Amino acid sequence: MSIAQNTETDVKLRCISCGATPASAVQDFRCTACGDLLEFFFPGWTFDSPPFDPAALKSLWLDRRASRDALDQSGVWRFRELLPHIPNPKNKEHVITLREGNTPLYRLPRCARATGVENLHAKHQGMNPTASFKDTGMTVAASSAHQGGFRWVACASTGNTSASMAAYAARGNMHSLVLIPDGKISWGKLSQSLDYGALTCQLRTDFDGCVRILNDLVRQKPVYLLNSVNPYRIEGQKTAAIELMEQLGWEPPDHIIVPGGNLGNSSAIGKALLEMRELKLISRLPKLSIIQAHGANPFYRSVREFGGKKLEPMTADTLATAIRIGNPASWKKALRVLQATGGEVEEVTEVEIAAAKAEIGADGIGCEPASAVTLAGLKKLRRSGFVKSGDAVVLILTGHLLKDPDFTIKFHRGDLFAGSPDTGTPDAAEAARTKHLQHAPVVLDADLGAVIAALDAAERNS
Amino acid sequence: MSIAQNTETDVKLRCISCGATPASAVQDFRCTACGDLLEFFFPGWTFDSPPFDPAALKSLWLDRRASRDALDQSGVWRFRELLPHIPNPKNKEHVITLREGNTPLYRLPRCARATGVENLHAKHQGMNPTASFKDTGMTVAASSAHQGGFRWVACASTGNTSASMAAYAARGNMHSLVLIPDGKISWGKLSQSLDYGALTCQLRTDFDGCVRILNDLVRQKPVYLLNSVNPYRIEGQKTAAIELMEQLGWEPPDHIIVPGGNLGNSSAIGKALLEMRELKLISRLPKLSIIQAHGANPFYRSVREFGGKKLEPMTADTLATAIRIGNPASWKKALRVLQATGGEVEEVTEVEIAAAKAEIGADGIGCEPASAVTLAGLKKLRRSGFVKSGDAVVLILTGHLLKDPDFTIKFHRGDLFAGSPDTGTPDAAEAARTKHLQHAPVVLDADLGAVIAALDAAERNS
Repeated sequence: MSIAQNTETDVKLRCISCGATPASAVQDFRCTACGDLLEFFFPGWTFDSPPFDPAALKSLWLDRRASRDALDQSGVWRFRELLPHIPNPKNKEHVITLREGNTPLYRLPRCARATGVENLHAKHQGMNPTASFKDTGMTVAASSAHQGGFRWVACASTGNTSASMAAYAARGNMHSLVLIPDGKISWGKLSQSLDYGALTCQLRTDFDGCVRILNDLVRQKPVYLLNSVNPYRIEGQKTAAIELMEQLGWEPPDHIIVPGGNLGNSSAIGKALLEMRELKLISRLPKLSIIQAHGANPFYRSVREFGGKKLEPMTADTLATAIRIGNPASWKKALRVLQATGGEVEEVTEVEIAAAKAEIGADGIGCEPASAVTLAGLKKLRRSGFVKSGDAVVLILTGHLLKDPDFTIKFHRGDLFAGSPDTGTPDAAEAARTKHLQHAPVVLDADLGAVIAALDAAERNS
Repeated sequence: MSIAQNTETDVKLRCISCGATPASAVQDFRCTACGDLLEFFFPGWTFDSPPFDPAALKSLWLDRRASRDALDQSGVWRFRELLPHIPNPKNKEHVITLREGNTPLYRLPRCARATGVENLHAKHQGMNPTASFKDTGMTVAASSAHQGGFRWVACASTGNTSASMAAYAARGNMHSLVLIPDGKISWGKLSQSLDYGALTCQLRTDFDGCVRILNDLVRQKPVYLLNSVNPYRIEGQKTAAIELMEQLGWEPPDHIIVPGGNLGNSSAIGKALLEMRELKLISRLPKLSIIQAHGANPFYRSVREFGGKKLEPMTADTLATAIRIGNPASWKKALRVLQATGGEVEEVTEVEIAAAKAEIGADGIGCEPASAVTLAGLKKLRRSGFVKSGDAVVLILTGHLLKDPDFTIKFHRGDLFAGSPDTGTPDAAEAARTKHLQHAPVVLDADLGAVIAALDAAERNS
């Protein structure tokens, strides 16, 4: 069984800290010399003599959109020139695809007015097959597991990774093991891992505790690790940024804003931006900014308090369960991206997240709470002056509304924050301001008059 | 305000029963002469002298896949030559699109082995923006409402229509009124209508009761009706069949199998097939078969007991809430399609639905319960000999797994049918057979040994 090998001359594994270039990765995808993360790099990709003609590459990718080939129809494999090869690239049987990627870019007219940023778009990665951005990385990493001959794949998850992994494992005839924190993932995400037939273990710990156990497990059992320390996942997730640039006619926006949880997605999007500039596919870099929930803000604190020199793990607590992570694996990769692109890091409160989610919904676009930190963060970046009204801004929405219906229903019924926040706090003031966004369902007798009365009342208030 | 007018010479409204061709529709979209449904027809589309060159049309549609134009990127508007014109077609501001359609066609290898139908595909309409097939019709009908100048749109719904309508209304700056049966739609669907800002009324009645009140309401108030009696919805939903034929290289399968609820979708897909043959886009017709849940089987009974001469409304009861409909509006349209294509009608039990849903999930494809009636129905059509092992079969999956997580979690925990069905019934035997499909989540302490024990046990059982 092989995990990830430097068999190709044009792609290598490298440790992000000590720079070691191992011939292959061990089961936990950590550097055997220093224990830090590995990444793929492409020695032949140099700015002065890029190996591809940028215009030809763009044209090739565009042509593939009209192809009936399964690889071309995938929004990930369509860009396969920028991915590490799955060994035997012609051996398509090892590519497990659900036609991931191909996600829409939406204008957000109401949010644009509310933030004073006229040129505001959302790239909705929640429109992937299992309804989160995880699918773009999973198709590459699961294919690698399949090629390596593994019977079992595994991940620790707040719910989105497990849903995606279980689907791709089922598709590739592999067994999957899911470790999730008991009681702390949404019903929707749990239902996905069960439906796709995963062995689903709810552990009496948090996400970070699940990660620790899984790291021990893969050292003892022939189980392929599919957490985002797996560098194939990062490679697949790069394609969201490539697809975004294509959608924008290869004209980069001024800002890209990403939710920050385990920080693999920020790392992937940033890596893609840097590589695209190296390959002359784009001529300048957008600033990539990362937003965390206040209750799960270890990266925010790392940058603001310690200048990025260290990261102090914390016990994470936020209703945005997808980013309820206290010890993010990819923080060093994300830090590098932040510095290379000149982006910012911000934190937002629970009430700010809920209000932003409702505002995105009012634009007819549904997302899960973690995605909405991007809009909440944009508001703060506007107030600080980091984002200007004339700037072009793209928010990365990472999960679909249906990932967490409970949050939405509780918000609109007005009991999401029951018991908190305390009167008189800034959050309480913000909660009061967001009351107008709430639309509780009305229960009525089956009577025409009652419905007309409700309609007339809504018309008066509109 | 205009609802639907015969202003174009190439498209007309016509009553499906008395053949009247009104110049425009009234608010309830019923024929003013006889009260039956209206449909669009295209007098110029004749088999002997079709108005389009089929090869040129196919080529045009394919080229649009590489376009950056919003209309071309929609999997509905890409096929706009086969849609009735929204008045002022160049006036794109009235087209409300979320880039609907563009849904994947998946092979189902395990289901193929289980049914003995090797050439088995699923067209997954649950991959639309609001996660059900409703979006394809809604983009056309909501655009028509927008063009007509309406401030309010409304629907009665089991949940999917309301989710879709609320999103498109928000996108088009219109208000939306949702009438849903209290307590009988899934949490996920309710959350969508709230998130998109609809006025959501839960009425103490069933879906059919909601329809009755809404029909009265639109006669009194300037509210645009977006139920599937609206013929624009049927037109938009046709595109799923067009896109499917394109995905199959314009080589029709032998069978298309569709869930039967309000029967608008069957009608739309059948209408598209007949029109495509008329226009020489395809050379033969697939048989379109319709599957209902036993507890909501008025159409099945109409065909089997009354030869389609009448339909007796019933009180519907099924866990497949999306097709929990006792008085389907479009039954006459669906009957015509069944007869024209030579399709069959079948009914399936609750246990058969649950088992089929789990089998589809094991192929890595998630769907809601109503979608799974297609696979359950295919099994019966195989047993009856109507579908042969060498036939090419396409199942239409109508909604995403995340539309109803509760159903999935209950099934895998083993308490979906708690208290029923009775021991000794055929359903009880079927339930026993499906036990192997259930994978209950395991709650464990955060302990490596416990996880390894669970893994080893699963490995032994696999």
